[in-house]
Amino acid sequence: MSVTVVSTETSVIEEQLAAAREAIASRPLISRVVLTACGGSYAVMLPAEYFFGTAARKLEAVALNAAEFTSRASSRVDAETLVILCSHSGTTPETVEAAELARSQGALTVAFTHELGSPLARASEYVIGYEHGPEKSESYVAPALLLRLIARVLDDRENAEFVTPVDQAIVALQSLAPAARAAHADAADTWGFSHRREQLIYTMAAGSNYGTAYSFAICLLQEMQWVHSAAIHAGEYFHGPFEITDTDVPFIALLGLDETRPVEQRAVDFLVKHSDRALVIDAQSFGLERVAPLVRGLIAHLLFNVVLRTYADALADHRGHPLSVRRYMWRMEY
Amino acid sequence: MSVTVVSTETSVIEEQLAAAREAIASRPLISRVVLTACGGSYAVMLPAEYFFGTAARKLEAVALNAAEFTSRASSRVDAETLVILCSHSGTTPETVEAAELARSQGALTVAFTHELGSPLARASEYVIGYEHGPEKSESYVAPALLLRLIARVLDDRENAEFVTPVDQAIVALQSLAPAARAAHADAADTWGFSHRREQLIYTMAAGSNYGTAYSFAICLLQEMQWVHSAAIHAGEYFHGPFEITDTDVPFIALLGLDETRPVEQRAVDFLVKHSDRALVIDAQSFGLERVAPLVRGLIAHLLFNVVLRTYADALADHRGHPLSVRRYMWRMEY
Repeated sequence: MSVTVVSTETSVIEEQLAAAREAIASRPLISRVVLTACGGSYAVMLPAEYFFGTAARKLEAVALNAAEFTSRASSRVDAETLVILCSHSGTTPETVEAAELARSQGALTVAFTHELGSPLARASEYVIGYEHGPEKSESYVAPALLLRLIARVLDDRENAEFVTPVDQAIVALQSLAPAARAAHADAADTWGFSHRREQLIYTMAAGSNYGTAYSFAICLLQEMQWVHSAAIHAGEYFHGPFEITDTDVPFIALLGLDETRPVEQRAVDFLVKHSDRALVIDAQSFGLERVAPLVRGLIAHLLFNVVLRTYADALADHRGHPLSVRRYMWRMEY
Repeated sequence: MSVTVVSTETSVIEEQLAAAREAIASRPLISRVVLTACGGSYAVMLPAEYFFGTAARKLEAVALNAAEFTSRASSRVDAETLVILCSHSGTTPETVEAAELARSQGALTVAFTHELGSPLARASEYVIGYEHGPEKSESYVAPALLLRLIARVLDDRENAEFVTPVDQAIVALQSLAPAARAAHADAADTWGFSHRREQLIYTMAAGSNYGTAYSFAICLLQEMQWVHSAAIHAGEYFHGPFEITDTDVPFIALLGLDETRPVEQRAVDFLVKHSDRALVIDAQSFGLERVAPLVRGLIAHLLFNVVLRTYADALADHRGHPLSVRRYMWRMEY
């Protein structure tokens, strides 16, 4: 089964995805995957690393910030390496440099970007242009397309059977996402109002949802709201961070559907007992019963992304601080 | 060259290190290394992952929180896998469980712990007991012994030449550590006093020093001081977190000596321009000129650990909040 093509533009994306798949399949020597980007795009790589880390039988995968990747300049970035990159504008210098380095060392490069004519697109051998903005389809956002690519790589390379359930799940997002958004609208508004004076809000998750918690902490809260934050890994919580839990310390904790749910659940159980300011979002409410159990956990983060954006919008509204405001980015050289 | 044996106890440690080395060498099929632990011990694994990630030509290495590792239950944890674990008391349930899982799947298990009779020691095939406390030698702390083990693995498996310079550097720590501690004593006291009312202090680093920044954030600040914190990766700083930089937001930023120093330097340059509360600690002041250039960068984090402890002690003193105080740990079941 393939994703229904709804416009010329998505047919182009399907062709790009197919071309990248074919290029990867034509290089049987590839034994490792490096997922590299910066900031919010790096966060997109984290559930992808989890997908490989739990499902791959042979392929090794690592996610690295692009500046760290280029600095390391590992001798193992070679013809046996697939390097997957992402930059929304395609202009992130560290990510462009990572693509150039990877390509110069013989790695196969596949870039995700919203800008097909961008430096990253030009620096990479294969490009997948994803949708963005109010008119976008939830099936064609970067993290959805990345999961679809990985499903293809695992099916082709390791005789897995991910393509059908992943593609079906990603089609289902088109109705699940607006439903989840609507279901959380009132709660998000209440939360945004009650948190409008908070100077710090922690996020917490594990497994395939950690990237979403990380993205919310560094992009939505720190960058777009100037609210202090840190993404706490739920498995690390009891080994340090939990000591800052208090009745008045706000947290957003995610309960996903993957193998790490018990790890998240244990942290949430403690958190809600000791904090009056814990918001727990449970992916069991996302209607994912429609999706094959094999991939439910891998898909949930896409809905966390959607739902958490609703909370960020509400917070921004009640704080009178639009998500688009910056004090450094776009305002100076650095 | 080998580290000078100064007591029966260290001779036991040397024998344990040699036994682990031999066991790893006797399994030529090993192709991947998983470094797994929780909290402060997980932080010890991060520079080790960097060592493999920059220096290994074939061996793959990944660092994972132990609960995440066990949840993932990857089918690739098998006879081709070396699993290195660490728990100070050897009682951390998640780490013991990780050792048991790894061993049951045929992986070779090597544990670092201070307690040789502990559950982790019993669950693992090879154990390296490290020193701790006021009488410890800086050459026999967990992260030093871990670097020595990795140097041996890389020399044995990949014809590298790390053992001699790493061992020499780790002997040099015995004089470099007290010198660095003394050199920072006054600055630490001044910093501790001036930060005694701060409710949040960020840390920042990259590469082999990120683990130290992470450990300081989650163990020293969050756990032992109940001060909010987050370890910001210097390569991620400009992609979100830097927007919370302000004249009055405190940071501790590390400038190391490894391949990622330019990444750290760029972030520091911005930070000190926009914050009046930035403490920058530069490993160039640690006297590491005595150490072979090949391993200087890999060794610096051991001195950051020592120096930062001095800052934590001073902060605890001026806050009247001993580092040993907990509100949850050791006080309740969780």
